[in-house]
Amino acid sequence: MADKKKKIGKVLIANRGEIALRILRTVKELSMDSVVIYEKPDSEAYYIRLADDAIMIGDGPRKDYLDIEKIIWAARKTGSDAIHPGYGFLSEIPDFSAECERAGIIFIGPPPDVIRNLGNKVIAREIMEKADIPFIPGTKDLFRGDAGLREAIAFGRKVGYPIMLKASSGGGGRGIRKVTSEADLEFQLPQARAEALSAFGDESVYVEKCIEAPRHVEIQILADQYGNIIHLGSRDCSIQRRHQKLLEIAPADLPPDVLNAMYDAAIEAARVAGYVNAGTVEFLVDSKTNEFWFMEMNTRLQVEHTVTEELTGVDIVREQIRIAEGERLRIPEERIHLLGKAVQVRINAEDPKNNFMPEGGKRLEVYQSPGGPGVRLDGLVYQGYKIPTEYDSLMVKMTIRGFNWEQTIQRLKRALQGFLIVGPKSTTAFYLAICDEPDFLAGKFDTSYLETHPEIFKYPEGEREIAKLSRLIAETHAKKMNPYAY
Amino acid sequence: MADKKKKIGKVLIANRGEIALRILRTVKELSMDSVVIYEKPDSEAYYIRLADDAIMIGDGPRKDYLDIEKIIWAARKTGSDAIHPGYGFLSEIPDFSAECERAGIIFIGPPPDVIRNLGNKVIAREIMEKADIPFIPGTKDLFRGDAGLREAIAFGRKVGYPIMLKASSGGGGRGIRKVTSEADLEFQLPQARAEALSAFGDESVYVEKCIEAPRHVEIQILADQYGNIIHLGSRDCSIQRRHQKLLEIAPADLPPDVLNAMYDAAIEAARVAGYVNAGTVEFLVDSKTNEFWFMEMNTRLQVEHTVTEELTGVDIVREQIRIAEGERLRIPEERIHLLGKAVQVRINAEDPKNNFMPEGGKRLEVYQSPGGPGVRLDGLVYQGYKIPTEYDSLMVKMTIRGFNWEQTIQRLKRALQGFLIVGPKSTTAFYLAICDEPDFLAGKFDTSYLETHPEIFKYPEGEREIAKLSRLIAETHAKKMNPYAY
Repeated sequence: MADKKKKIGKVLIANRGEIALRILRTVKELSMDSVVIYEKPDSEAYYIRLADDAIMIGDGPRKDYLDIEKIIWAARKTGSDAIHPGYGFLSEIPDFSAECERAGIIFIGPPPDVIRNLGNKVIAREIMEKADIPFIPGTKDLFRGDAGLREAIAFGRKVGYPIMLKASSGGGGRGIRKVTSEADLEFQLPQARAEALSAFGDESVYVEKCIEAPRHVEIQILADQYGNIIHLGSRDCSIQRRHQKLLEIAPADLPPDVLNAMYDAAIEAARVAGYVNAGTVEFLVDSKTNEFWFMEMNTRLQVEHTVTEELTGVDIVREQIRIAEGERLRIPEERIHLLGKAVQVRINAEDPKNNFMPEGGKRLEVYQSPGGPGVRLDGLVYQGYKIPTEYDSLMVKMTIRGFNWEQTIQRLKRALQGFLIVGPKSTTAFYLAICDEPDFLAGKFDTSYLETHPEIFKYPEGEREIAKLSRLIAETHAKKMNPYAY
Repeated sequence: MADKKKKIGKVLIANRGEIALRILRTVKELSMDSVVIYEKPDSEAYYIRLADDAIMIGDGPRKDYLDIEKIIWAARKTGSDAIHPGYGFLSEIPDFSAECERAGIIFIGPPPDVIRNLGNKVIAREIMEKADIPFIPGTKDLFRGDAGLREAIAFGRKVGYPIMLKASSGGGGRGIRKVTSEADLEFQLPQARAEALSAFGDESVYVEKCIEAPRHVEIQILADQYGNIIHLGSRDCSIQRRHQKLLEIAPADLPPDVLNAMYDAAIEAARVAGYVNAGTVEFLVDSKTNEFWFMEMNTRLQVEHTVTEELTGVDIVREQIRIAEGERLRIPEERIHLLGKAVQVRINAEDPKNNFMPEGGKRLEVYQSPGGPGVRLDGLVYQGYKIPTEYDSLMVKMTIRGFNWEQTIQRLKRALQGFLIVGPKSTTAFYLAICDEPDFLAGKFDTSYLETHPEIFKYPEGEREIAKLSRLIAETHAKKMNPYAY
């Protein structure tokens, strides 16, 4: 195929928070000019001062980051020739990709049709059926009204309960309900439709066989504009809370033949979908048999892309931009080393013991973060930063690299202990509790992990820290002159 | 040889600052107990609260960190069965290793004799002569008084000026003088002796042929107690100021046959010296011919060990502790991947434009540091931290990893731009200027780099930063309500 090269000179980052900073870092490394947009509540954000240009696009919260017209305007105003959507917000809205195309701006992501097809779970299933990818037995969109209910009941009788009720336009773990009986189905179906309509603007739902306590394993792929597709290995994202990922691991601990089959399936899925740019193919894996099924394909950068970067040394954002510029993939798979382990945790300003209630509005009176070997931080908070009430409560993502599972978890533990956070509550002690839990250490976990290990929530809260500080202060100020007084 | 295994349960860290924290991190990862000692001016240090035990050993400054008796006492008091000396202070004092041995405490480093022999440059030369390692033509210790002067004059006539005058017990770039003529020699010799006596307690000096504008390349080695020795690749430390390293790179950009010859020489040097634990063999390399000569062997962890760690994924402190426990080397060289590049810079509270004057006594009013892919930070400062007047002015070491030289320097640049330091002056803008200098980018540098590139010191000081912040504040507060007013 003929070359489609088009050099990008200036990138507008249509996102906020840590991912805006993450993308900005690579844009700077590529010596491209950078523009960030922000809503008023984000005015103080660290990354704004690092960009070449910054435009406040409105009072927000959230609505301006979703305003396609304003963002295209900002790109034109600043002479940006490309837009990176990050994750969330407009990243999987096909109209955004389409509007960029119409405005002659390069969208750093897949073409609109690909986003549209893969974003609709029923169409995505049809594509995967063509590609001969194993997928979980399920229906297409249910008929409206009672006909849909009858269809779902028939399906439940065929595969047995529990079954899953899913919003066709859902994604990222949202719009999913577990149904345990026919009575439950009758009760939940109308709710699910109403919820889908309000959350995704589309009331379509469908039902699927429920795989109990599976593992969630995903394959990162890269595809250029010339049909070349490679994978960058796997990630295990089984540790979740209500379908939201909490801790991600690369690679997944699975036998090589299973992983190879998943790589092949992911690349074939991308090929049949006509995929371009970075994407993730998510699978459910039976914890006992290692049988796997296609779940969905995410047409964007993932929050957890960092574990793959740490494992492979590949900068995925850099590859996204190169692909968007019409460059060919240059990384032969055989040169990518999948040695060692990487784990990511999300240090949020939340109280895990209180249902992960966000601590928005609180200020970081003290903030110190760890470093040293194998520690990567992607964050934007600093001492004095106020946790916003308007957005999510992520403070920093920490990605740990080690040469095997044991060392990686020991390193994760010591790094978590290196945080000193005064002000909001955080998830550090919660993750420390996971680091000490025997099943986790033994690699025995699936998506039911948090439900089956409620003892994790009984962690002590910073007591050790406080005791140590008190002792130190006493020692320094009371016995300070006599070293032998200890 | 029979196994000499002895499990370490508790490690006392006989050092301060970033290297105390660096060592502590690995001790914690190994699930060993940890003890830090500190002098009073270090009472507020971040790492103290992370250790299991902390003992203030005196008012300092510096003298208590050099007090062997107190440190052995602290180890006994806390039940420590091993001591890690870090770098500097007592790390290369043979008596310290000997006293640990006598007290039944494992010294995490080489045996006393090895430190003593390699610490005396004349004895070290004799050892290298035996090992057939190429070394720079030079004398043994000069005779005392005028006989020594005559000896040096004769040597100068033989090899030609300039020659180097070196303290026999010097090290780490200290105690070295360049001599340009016989008259200069007569003038400098008494000074060099007086200086050597006051700095190292030994007035012995010797002379050496001067290799003009060489490169400084060193090989990291690991040796276990059973005679197994491996290397972990090379480091180029040519960018120096007055023999003090400023920026270190792994690996050195040299042809493979030259590197292989240096690996062989380093391993042979360690073998003949009876070396045990981690060590570094330093070479001077002729910038034109790539001929190399042995310079010295450092019997300790180096400041710049981080670049080797980032390149290889090996935790050198962990290997030091394992070797001290009598474990065998487990890392076959062929499994160590020397892919990509790593660079370390030292973010000091100093004013490079004013002769690198330390900014001791100033407080970090604002401190924000970079992160993201390929950035490792080894530091102990935080917002509110006061730069001590009593010790060095290192705030944080930053080590950058990339897949090639160009990407690594682009990443270094964007990471340097990510620092926000208000209070003391720092070396960030100085390093940024190096990142933009064409010879550096082209890999053309040797130990004369700073002298031959005085334009580096003409960097602008934070002007861009201040302009950006002002614009941001104006934008946020003046035009804040109208997004289209930009």
